[in-house]
Amino acid sequence: MTPLRPNPARPTPARPNSDRPTTPHLDRAPWPADLKALSDAELARLAGELREETISAVSVTGGHLGSGLGVVELSVALHAVFDAPRDKIIWDVGHQCYPHKILTGRRGRIRTLRQGGGLSGFTKRAESDYDPFGAAHSSTSISAGLGFAAARDLGAPGVGDVVAVIGDGAMSAGMAWEAMNNAGALGKRLFVILNDNEMSISPPVGALSEYLSRIYANGPLHDLKALAEGAAALLPGPAREGARRARDLVRGAALGGTLFEALGFSYVGPIDGHDMGQLLRVMRAARARADGPVLIHCLTVKGKGYAPAESSADKYHGVAKFDVVSGEQAKGKPAAPSYTAVFGEQLTRAAALDPRVVGITAAMAEGSGISKLKARFPERAFDVGIAEQHAVTFAAGLAAAGMRPFCAIYSTFLQRAYDQVVHDVALQNLPVRFALDRAGLVGADGATHAGAFDLAYLCTLPNFTVMAAADEAELARMVATAAAHDAGPIALRYPRGNGTGVAIPEAPQPLEIGRGRVLREGSAVALLSLGGRLEECLAAAEALEARGLTCTVADARFAKPLDRGLILRLARGHAALITVEEGAAGGFGAHVLQLLAAEGALDRGLRIRTLTLPDRFIDQDTPERMYAEAGLTAADITAAALAALGVDAATEAATA
Amino acid sequence: MTPLRPNPARPTPARPNSDRPTTPHLDRAPWPADLKALSDAELARLAGELREETISAVSVTGGHLGSGLGVVELSVALHAVFDAPRDKIIWDVGHQCYPHKILTGRRGRIRTLRQGGGLSGFTKRAESDYDPFGAAHSSTSISAGLGFAAARDLGAPGVGDVVAVIGDGAMSAGMAWEAMNNAGALGKRLFVILNDNEMSISPPVGALSEYLSRIYANGPLHDLKALAEGAAALLPGPAREGARRARDLVRGAALGGTLFEALGFSYVGPIDGHDMGQLLRVMRAARARADGPVLIHCLTVKGKGYAPAESSADKYHGVAKFDVVSGEQAKGKPAAPSYTAVFGEQLTRAAALDPRVVGITAAMAEGSGISKLKARFPERAFDVGIAEQHAVTFAAGLAAAGMRPFCAIYSTFLQRAYDQVVHDVALQNLPVRFALDRAGLVGADGATHAGAFDLAYLCTLPNFTVMAAADEAELARMVATAAAHDAGPIALRYPRGNGTGVAIPEAPQPLEIGRGRVLREGSAVALLSLGGRLEECLAAAEALEARGLTCTVADARFAKPLDRGLILRLARGHAALITVEEGAAGGFGAHVLQLLAAEGALDRGLRIRTLTLPDRFIDQDTPERMYAEAGLTAADITAAALAALGVDAATEAATA
Repeated sequence: MTPLRPNPARPTPARPNSDRPTTPHLDRAPWPADLKALSDAELARLAGELREETISAVSVTGGHLGSGLGVVELSVALHAVFDAPRDKIIWDVGHQCYPHKILTGRRGRIRTLRQGGGLSGFTKRAESDYDPFGAAHSSTSISAGLGFAAARDLGAPGVGDVVAVIGDGAMSAGMAWEAMNNAGALGKRLFVILNDNEMSISPPVGALSEYLSRIYANGPLHDLKALAEGAAALLPGPAREGARRARDLVRGAALGGTLFEALGFSYVGPIDGHDMGQLLRVMRAARARADGPVLIHCLTVKGKGYAPAESSADKYHGVAKFDVVSGEQAKGKPAAPSYTAVFGEQLTRAAALDPRVVGITAAMAEGSGISKLKARFPERAFDVGIAEQHAVTFAAGLAAAGMRPFCAIYSTFLQRAYDQVVHDVALQNLPVRFALDRAGLVGADGATHAGAFDLAYLCTLPNFTVMAAADEAELARMVATAAAHDAGPIALRYPRGNGTGVAIPEAPQPLEIGRGRVLREGSAVALLSLGGRLEECLAAAEALEARGLTCTVADARFAKPLDRGLILRLARGHAALITVEEGAAGGFGAHVLQLLAAEGALDRGLRIRTLTLPDRFIDQDTPERMYAEAGLTAADITAAALAALGVDAATEAATA
Repeated sequence: MTPLRPNPARPTPARPNSDRPTTPHLDRAPWPADLKALSDAELARLAGELREETISAVSVTGGHLGSGLGVVELSVALHAVFDAPRDKIIWDVGHQCYPHKILTGRRGRIRTLRQGGGLSGFTKRAESDYDPFGAAHSSTSISAGLGFAAARDLGAPGVGDVVAVIGDGAMSAGMAWEAMNNAGALGKRLFVILNDNEMSISPPVGALSEYLSRIYANGPLHDLKALAEGAAALLPGPAREGARRARDLVRGAALGGTLFEALGFSYVGPIDGHDMGQLLRVMRAARARADGPVLIHCLTVKGKGYAPAESSADKYHGVAKFDVVSGEQAKGKPAAPSYTAVFGEQLTRAAALDPRVVGITAAMAEGSGISKLKARFPERAFDVGIAEQHAVTFAAGLAAAGMRPFCAIYSTFLQRAYDQVVHDVALQNLPVRFALDRAGLVGADGATHAGAFDLAYLCTLPNFTVMAAADEAELARMVATAAAHDAGPIALRYPRGNGTGVAIPEAPQPLEIGRGRVLREGSAVALLSLGGRLEECLAAAEALEARGLTCTVADARFAKPLDRGLILRLARGHAALITVEEGAAGGFGAHVLQLLAAEGALDRGLRIRTLTLPDRFIDQDTPERMYAEAGLTAADITAAALAALGVDAATEAATA
């Protein structure tokens, strides 16, 4: 943690090298307190330098660029007007926080963003006192901010003003509505900055975004004089239209103006989020005068100030390393198709075969592969916005009406809809298909985005079928399996990133429910893999055979229902059984153990080990290094098998 | 399932006996189609009879009364105007559905409500085609309804109009907001009835309910003529006030009236939900004219028409059997205090000792026991409304600010906030205390309210401590433990209903984290209980000892971290080890097995069985009978131990 107060011994300002922008104002302001000495004009110039520095840093690290560029002026204004870390500035999602990190003592490490051992790509409490509440999932900031405000009003020390900065996309999530509803009722002093850039990851899709467009099409509402003049033009005209208008007028007067005022907030805006003067004036006025919850509606442009990003906001949401001048992103080496792409193609294939197949995404049309379905069958692809809860029950309604919905939500985000999965889908045994991308560890996005818990939280549910794909061919078969499965809910999980390069069957056939497959046969050790560690298991088998220990390697395919026959055969026919999964404890291996216990297969002894993700969160790094830290590499599997057999690997190696 | 079309061979109408109301109109209308033949006046009379029949039925079954009485006229009007089951009438939560059940062929079974083998107390797909989407948790109806509407528009057969009936409390939940946002954008024909009775379970608490009050304080907005006249009075007056009004007028005009219109719905209302003529007129007009989403704002009175309920709406939310004339509810035999009451008292005690202790409930102030805290420390008890997601992250914010928040949410409802538990609490290792009432099977509320999955979904999370109380004295100690535990998140779970009658310590002391306790020692069988089945384990131990098998009985207390020393000792010192928990597979027993596997304690054999809830949902009944069906009684535990030991209980009994 950085010290609560800026360290008097300040770090040396980052030295611009030849590739780096010239940043004289920014160099003088490594901490927020330094901004207080600058004039408004100097702050505007500093913001320009901060933009250059952000672009420069992300060009070497990759990461979220567009969202950060959209809040450069806002970041400067917030830190100039408020007194962090006593004042709590809470960035919703947190992927727009790079400028904030540069302003809060972390400029020297900004080129380690999203790298192993480096700065997180999101806000993170463990990283800095200037990050009072970490994030990465959307729409949590108002709830957390209200918690700080309530604690402050109960006398908690060290808490001043609270500012939540939330995007228009994030505002469409139910959690934000719940928080606004509660904040409006409690009436506590709290600042919510609505960062309205009409773009979360996918373009916005809900009624709220249309509503916000109408607000700013109407021009700034905080200029009361102009409004009073303009109002005259709106008085009742011809009879019928007049009546309609009169109704609207009455409602407006009775109901308090904007939707936000309806919820008990004071509303200011819309203001230009790139006009430093306007930002500073409004924030200072709000800070001086607020005695309750205030919403400041701030219009920004995602990617602002960097032409390649502005002209292609979606592409620059998350970027690889890129050339600053051309905007060209580094290309990875040619590789197998991504699991996401394979899912999108196979779903589209299934949809072409069956008009009942539809796809649902929660604001992840590209990331989930639903965009491929939308391109071919636009009316059968639904992007419901950042609204996982609604997405799942909407899918349940479709299933209840006889459709075959695929609900494509990352493993980590399906957590947001767990009750809907339990109550609306599992309990009613409705055949909703869940496509869980990003299962397991995910690399640079770190612990917040890991798909670590779905095996535990789904396998415990009655009626569910749960599959995990070992490669992209298996994924294709599992999409076909899910499409054909009307008996109840079914989930398929697969990793982030590219497949293994295997050939994908042209006409994938449904798998038999609850049956695994055996890839090689041996007698000493059985390795039972679920999901993407199969290659590691095969490598471990090679290593074990090199030691004279023959191995059976099986791919369970199904975490639920378990392949009872296969598992009992593996348990009875081998000296040791090792299960391997890309998930936390309580998942696949746990259920295998409960099956074996119930069957009495442990009564006479079984050298069984269940390898899972460890009982801790793992920070961002390459997926390979993260799996090494998790202990799920071929070497770890080999070592676990040897230990189970009581073979001391070191001794054995020495005597070999 | 009832037939899709009403069966031509209609059931004999229920015969009124001397205790039953006289219901000539209702007797003639066992199915919705029969309502079509009645005049509006006859429908109004039928509604009166339906109210009497509902009161009569609930007086003998107990259950949710007030909410059903509030929608008697609405139920009749919906079934008179729409054509269920082709038209889909979806009741949010579903606890107001008793009149609907009486109207849809289930009158003959209405006095089996909430009983074993009887009608569910909620809507349920498996029960009737007139229940197109089951419920019990709040705020799912608009999402499900939109799913039906989207399926219809894609050509799904058998789907006509879709009506979602949702309360004002349920509308405050984020899921409803997500659904409205999506429905408004999609523009599909869909009817949402906002059943505004200013009362969910607890009185409403959010800004939305204040907003709705302002709407109806303003009088009906659907009378355009009156509005046009009234508008004149609202034209700008004195300067400053005039400017403020002008701003409101401008906004109203530009932004389209009510909050619902802002989201793309047509708005009709408010209308009197007990005026049959008005209901029928509005519904018929809406059905005839709607070409997109319509919200009909309907004012109702919870408990309408039954004086004891109207005068005490909260008490009649859920009632025991009662005397119809006096309204007096049947008293149960004197019993030990409820776990809820003990939690409320102990939390209040902790709050008295430590000003940092605060309590949060999501619209369950009475049911969670937070009301006790509120009575003593009103400013430290927060009821955030039906908003579990916000509740958890609000608590996380409080914890981040140094408070000691207890977030009291039923086990089944915490599912609604799983991502917040993972992302905002566990990942940041914030010391939020979760008090999970209603863990395990819950009786008359049935499968939807079972707290079956929390052990699986919480124990898989890093940083978490998870406790389960065996009795009310243990609960008291666990509240003290949680209050003192600042190292990270901690959950305590306890059953619905009354404690076992043990003495509660006057000054409960914190437990040592991760340590169980041994209640009796033996050598043949170890019974390791987590939670409320401890008495059953002790009874099983008696039964086993009667067979000469001495037993150790231990209370694990902690599902996480596990008491490694205790578990290894039990495993090594006994011929068999049986774990028992009130939760589904993947929970406590599963983690015990993974620990034993990792320790090599299974290598040489262990007769271990993990008794859990079965892999199916269990319908409502008494908790005792539900646990018998689940196989978690003393007899089941005894049988499992004998089977593990290879003792044939029947043979042994015969030879004894």
